[in-house]
Amino acid sequence: MKVDKLAMLTDFYELTMGNGYMLSGKMDQIVCFDMFFRKVPDDGGFAIMAGLDQIIRYLRDLKFEKEDIDFLRQKADFDEQFYNYLENFKFSCDVWAMPEGTPIFPNEPIFVVTGPVIQAQLIETVVLLTLNHQCLIATKANRIVRAALGRSVMEFGSRRAHGYDGAVLGARAAFIGGCIGTSCTVVEQTFGIPAMGTMAHSWVQMFDSEYEAFKTYAEVYPDSCTLLVDTYNVLKSGVPNAIKVFNEVVIPRGFRPKGIRIDSGDITYLSKESRKMLDEAGFQDCKIVASNSLDEYIIRDIIIQGAMVDTFGVGERLITSKSEPVFGGVYKLSAIKKDDVWIPKMKLSENISKTTIPGFKQVWRLFDRTTGKAISDLITHKDEVVDDSGSYTIFDPEQTWKQKTIENFTAKPLLIPIFNKGVLVYESPSLHEIQAFCKAQISTLWEEVLRFENPHSYYVDLSQKLWDCRDHLRKSMSGA
Amino acid sequence: MKVDKLAMLTDFYELTMGNGYMLSGKMDQIVCFDMFFRKVPDDGGFAIMAGLDQIIRYLRDLKFEKEDIDFLRQKADFDEQFYNYLENFKFSCDVWAMPEGTPIFPNEPIFVVTGPVIQAQLIETVVLLTLNHQCLIATKANRIVRAALGRSVMEFGSRRAHGYDGAVLGARAAFIGGCIGTSCTVVEQTFGIPAMGTMAHSWVQMFDSEYEAFKTYAEVYPDSCTLLVDTYNVLKSGVPNAIKVFNEVVIPRGFRPKGIRIDSGDITYLSKESRKMLDEAGFQDCKIVASNSLDEYIIRDIIIQGAMVDTFGVGERLITSKSEPVFGGVYKLSAIKKDDVWIPKMKLSENISKTTIPGFKQVWRLFDRTTGKAISDLITHKDEVVDDSGSYTIFDPEQTWKQKTIENFTAKPLLIPIFNKGVLVYESPSLHEIQAFCKAQISTLWEEVLRFENPHSYYVDLSQKLWDCRDHLRKSMSGA
Repeated sequence: MKVDKLAMLTDFYELTMGNGYMLSGKMDQIVCFDMFFRKVPDDGGFAIMAGLDQIIRYLRDLKFEKEDIDFLRQKADFDEQFYNYLENFKFSCDVWAMPEGTPIFPNEPIFVVTGPVIQAQLIETVVLLTLNHQCLIATKANRIVRAALGRSVMEFGSRRAHGYDGAVLGARAAFIGGCIGTSCTVVEQTFGIPAMGTMAHSWVQMFDSEYEAFKTYAEVYPDSCTLLVDTYNVLKSGVPNAIKVFNEVVIPRGFRPKGIRIDSGDITYLSKESRKMLDEAGFQDCKIVASNSLDEYIIRDIIIQGAMVDTFGVGERLITSKSEPVFGGVYKLSAIKKDDVWIPKMKLSENISKTTIPGFKQVWRLFDRTTGKAISDLITHKDEVVDDSGSYTIFDPEQTWKQKTIENFTAKPLLIPIFNKGVLVYESPSLHEIQAFCKAQISTLWEEVLRFENPHSYYVDLSQKLWDCRDHLRKSMSGA
Repeated sequence: MKVDKLAMLTDFYELTMGNGYMLSGKMDQIVCFDMFFRKVPDDGGFAIMAGLDQIIRYLRDLKFEKEDIDFLRQKADFDEQFYNYLENFKFSCDVWAMPEGTPIFPNEPIFVVTGPVIQAQLIETVVLLTLNHQCLIATKANRIVRAALGRSVMEFGSRRAHGYDGAVLGARAAFIGGCIGTSCTVVEQTFGIPAMGTMAHSWVQMFDSEYEAFKTYAEVYPDSCTLLVDTYNVLKSGVPNAIKVFNEVVIPRGFRPKGIRIDSGDITYLSKESRKMLDEAGFQDCKIVASNSLDEYIIRDIIIQGAMVDTFGVGERLITSKSEPVFGGVYKLSAIKKDDVWIPKMKLSENISKTTIPGFKQVWRLFDRTTGKAISDLITHKDEVVDDSGSYTIFDPEQTWKQKTIENFTAKPLLIPIFNKGVLVYESPSLHEIQAFCKAQISTLWEEVLRFENPHSYYVDLSQKLWDCRDHLRKSMSGA
């Protein structure tokens, strides 16, 4: 939660290498590192960029305290020069990133750093940790929000999150993905995301009867009365008691009841029956909130079955992205600058899937001018310009005979400058702006890409120049 | 990471209820809340208690700052009295808990609070969040450590954790579960858990050749030289270059090589072949470290196949407990004190599995005096004493005809006092002590309980008195 004290949250090998780079005279070698991911969680068609603002704060404030240096002195056997270097550490790299809320795809760089290797290496752990976490949760939240087909989704997961930041920053990412609020108070205090909540089962159990519990709550909160109706029996006891209390307490005070919440049982059946009972009682405007181990699949199913739910409270399966809790982003060296020229670097690896795209790169999104829809992403060298005034031929980087010539398109560079020589040159939008941007950008994707299962693989292509560069490197390295 | 600022990390409904309890004259009602869980992750035979020390710090330091009250004043419509109450909040409850490292089982209380409802309710979110997270990771880590059959396991997951605390507190829990160290520097700084690490692929790529990269590293760290051998090709290039550098740099300086690390490819095959090559070169003492998406299942399999791995570095599948990332602990009202007598409370719920065990309770572990093995846990009323001088009949709480009379046993109460009227009365052991305690306690479980798949269900029984109490309540409530 305290993003100004993350300097030491770094894998120890970043420091081991830093000391090594210094002693071997390589510390100021200018390099390029990319962050990218290889697979969309849940086999979805796209992921969502989130977490950049936390990285910005980290990089802006990055410094080592005396106590950190003292600790390292006692632990490690680094050169005295290196301790001095850390003591006077000042971030001076260039950083480009895709803005938060951008739909992102496998293998394209979403975050790029250039600068002295000693610095660019050091920040790896926090960059990965932050983006992996928030991209994961934003992506999951967006799936759940899309499954709800316009109904509201609240993030309810704090109690099942992986640690305090898991809860708080997870709620932030969930909001970017489209959730309207959170259960957690400090999330509103920190990020302005509405925190909501009414009562737990314990409230109901504290009174001699459910009726008395509801009545007391309604007397305290007549203007915002939402009652939890499943402590005993939703249809026999919960809803009848709620209606009674709405009539006896809420209405006479000049308010309308706000809602009921169902947290167990068959949500489809119970919500339909509850809806009928509420409607018959004249409370057509009383909302039904459902919670209890929901995710996009269950929400989709119960909506198909006609569940009458207005708001879904989604907890553990959202805040942990339970069905796939790892966003496997990696941070790889992609180029080294020698005599002012970028020398592309590539990792072949024992697993072909772990092979990287070499070079200092830009990513362009090509939009159809007529439909406004995204046609493809195109990865190029950083200094290439995609001319969108005429036609352009894109091709599959593995099966190169699959080609497509496009016209009447616009090309938008996705990686935008964040730090210039260590100076912050980007102003983060507000969270509400990010949420709106995310929604708008997703609307540029074809429905086929949005599908939950077997979505269409969105094209992520390489420019001819970049393809040639990779091909050349692959061939020369496979003999290594 | 800053455990003294968690007061506002509370679900908003805890505050809504707090204000409601105050206004309805119930705030000082003495109640009992239990935390328990319903299912062991990964269908294992037991889980491990972890996270208590973080809760202790939270409860000890729990207070609201002026800025918190100001925020709530602007957000909510609580009574002025309630803001004053929060401003002067002082935790005064009694707390019992199972010590960290204790093997824990479904449905038994692992954390119990008694005190004024307004307080006991307020702490729900942080109690659940903390224990759910750390119990999850400690349990997963222990599975992985047990799969490694005495080989070392290192926690390597920071970059894939869910937020900063997810990484740091997750590493703490992994250590309790038996990991010997972590990749993350701040974890050693905070908790004294050894942080280790040598080089990434980027180090190797920074040099004109793998040989040069290894040579430079060995010159900087001749006394602790571990080389990452899979950047190009483990057997054709990585291991031969490592051996060359060991001979040329490490040995002449009077040291022995420490190890090689393999991070991709077929770990079984590559480790066996690498072992042969190292042995033939005279480096029988050079360790082999393996990483790359490992978990208990893969580790078990590759050991069976004869993999020659000395240390496993386990990342994402440990730090997120990927195969089951939710530890579903809940916090439920179990009793209310009236006229100095505890009135048991129970939640029936629409889902029978969500039914709770009523009453203010203790949990006993019954050990066989001869074998030292744990026979069963027994949940009793708090004031019951289990007499272990004679024989005792335990029975299955659902299938009550399944009975067993035991003799020659000791009964050990597992819930021990942590806070007495808000005063801390427990001294947390060191993390190393907790790790050792955990290992010793697990050794009291039968092997059948330790199995990864289809483990024997360890008995968690109720005393006759508690069973009668629950039976009575169930019957009386099912008519509600």
